Amino acid sequence: MRKIRAVVYGVGRMGSISTRLMLEHGVEIVGAISQSPQKVGRDLGDVAGLGFQTNVTVERDAEAVLSQLRPDIAIVTVSSYLADMYEHLHRCADHGVNAITLAEEAFYPWRTSPRMTAALDALAKERGVTLTGSGQQDVYWMNLVSLMMGTSHRIDSVVGRVSWNVDDYGPEVAKDQRVGDTLEQFEGFLSRGDRPPTFGRNTLDALVAGTGLRVSAIENHTRPETATTELYSSTLDLRIPAGEVIGFTDIDTIRTVEGPVFTFEMTGSVYAEGQRDVNEWDIHGEPELSVVNPVLNTQMTTCTSMVNRIPDVLNAPPGYVTVDRLPQLKYRAFPLGSYVEAG
Amino acid sequence: MRKIRAVVYGVGRMGSISTRLMLEHGVEIVGAISQSPQKVGRDLGDVAGLGFQTNVTVERDAEAVLSQLRPDIAIVTVSSYLADMYEHLHRCADHGVNAITLAEEAFYPWRTSPRMTAALDALAKERGVTLTGSGQQDVYWMNLVSLMMGTSHRIDSVVGRVSWNVDDYGPEVAKDQRVGDTLEQFEGFLSRGDRPPTFGRNTLDALVAGTGLRVSAIENHTRPETATTELYSSTLDLRIPAGEVIGFTDIDTIRTVEGPVFTFEMTGSVYAEGQRDVNEWDIHGEPELSVVNPVLNTQMTTCTSMVNRIPDVLNAPPGYVTVDRLPQLKYRAFPLGSYVEAG
Repeated sequence: MRKIRAVVYGVGRMGSISTRLMLEHGVEIVGAISQSPQKVGRDLGDVAGLGFQTNVTVERDAEAVLSQLRPDIAIVTVSSYLADMYEHLHRCADHGVNAITLAEEAFYPWRTSPRMTAALDALAKERGVTLTGSGQQDVYWMNLVSLMMGTSHRIDSVVGRVSWNVDDYGPEVAKDQRVGDTLEQFEGFLSRGDRPPTFGRNTLDALVAGTGLRVSAIENHTRPETATTELYSSTLDLRIPAGEVIGFTDIDTIRTVEGPVFTFEMTGSVYAEGQRDVNEWDIHGEPELSVVNPVLNTQMTTCTSMVNRIPDVLNAPPGYVTVDRLPQLKYRAFPLGSYVEAG
Repeated sequence: MRKIRAVVYGVGRMGSISTRLMLEHGVEIVGAISQSPQKVGRDLGDVAGLGFQTNVTVERDAEAVLSQLRPDIAIVTVSSYLADMYEHLHRCADHGVNAITLAEEAFYPWRTSPRMTAALDALAKERGVTLTGSGQQDVYWMNLVSLMMGTSHRIDSVVGRVSWNVDDYGPEVAKDQRVGDTLEQFEGFLSRGDRPPTFGRNTLDALVAGTGLRVSAIENHTRPETATTELYSSTLDLRIPAGEVIGFTDIDTIRTVEGPVFTFEMTGSVYAEGQRDVNEWDIHGEPELSVVNPVLNTQMTTCTSMVNRIPDVLNAPPGYVTVDRLPQLKYRAFPLGSYVEAG
């Protein structure tokens, strides 16, 4: 059995959880990269809160780490959007390192950032490596829905509703979700018109692409979510007074030439006490279908999905390979290296 | 695009629904087979309650239909168990006809009927055709669970609970579920010890096989379900007095050498008014996971799963190919023939 050698590229909340999951699945962590002065130079075990030393020091120079260590794969958790992710994924590919990321746009960036995706795809093919986006999208927002759709005779519409807690994903995501904005600031953010794609958009793009249906229209509506009483954001260490922004809800819709309409309503916000994650999908048509996850830990399954995908990425052909081209995600009862094909 | 030519092999409740689904998905029905004197000689459209004529006459002689018509595939809905199904699947393969069936044991018969399965596999390979079992098991009892398991870091146990209405599946299934037995008759049925495998057993066999875990023990407990007030079975046209058997619940458990335990509790019974189908799965471990179908029409999705699988069967390599070796089931937005690969 081959032992997978991995670099943790970004040691925030998601990178830290994923580090533990990989270690417990027999992955050898050979390096770690962070831009944070509070993390560089410390042991990865300390930074990730593992409770033990890993003898891997967090380093700042990504180029040096990748070129010197030549890992099998980098686990990249630094940003949500392809404009920010481009340099990191490019760097991995350029150094002949496969990469998997949680970046939401990276899940299916073909339609929202076609030129950057094509450039990464070409470089990855040239260097013989695979770049893939996974995360909560992979199973809960796409493959679970796609699988249920496989039991439809006729689909009229697909309607998804999701909620997740911004405090589970670190300050970068909380800022992207406009936590702490006044309503005026939020209006300004929306009206500037330079917003990156919504997470729902990329998910629906993947879902619709898998059906072969032709897109006829794309719509997005966004509403701010505001605190009804004062709420505390732990990841930002910020008290948000009643009336100010704790996140927002995107409602993305894709209409198709053939008829079926896909709608995805996603709320990412600071949670009130007792509030729980939501993942609910209705598939209207013949027959009526629905699927729900009554017990849901989006923070964890965001990471488990990515980590369990590692063997699929290593087994995939070179290029920018979105998960619609990978096998159905499987439970990894044995060390991840045992799922990697020879050669 | 190739037009798929199909024979409906068994024109009961499931075969009738599947006939309509296939016609609406552009499949050409070229023949129909039944052993029932009430059905032979009539137009398939009348027998299946389609409301129109198909110009296909239901015939009795399966050998003649298969050898003369040489269809691409037979949709076989005649029995639940491989001992009964063997001759039908053998006949299809022998005549060079691919076959897909709802027979519960046929879903994954490698462990419960290994010799018959191996014989069918060898014949299918020799004749260059594929034999596959699908039905509700395919997505709702196996792939949905397997997919969710793909987001587990560590599984301690998997617990499924299912309920379906025997009246949805015709008299053959209702008799197999012992509807109308006295408790004494039911005890006799259990104690004879010649019971065919439970539906849950074959489902768990497929689920566990997909994980690579090694089976250490297999357990089955069965309890009769009895009417609390008089109930009416429409498929048997039978009134069942309070205290008599309306079906039963199987609790199947597979233990593994590595630790995870799989339990599947399935109830098939005559429903009281307002009773609904159930499909609920909990995956205990890290993290805790669960998935539920709040809206569920087992009768329909049993048929849609099989019909949507037809292209996968035609694209598969020859042999007895269980669904763990087929691609993830997909929605068929276009005629089924358009999903069949050339060559």
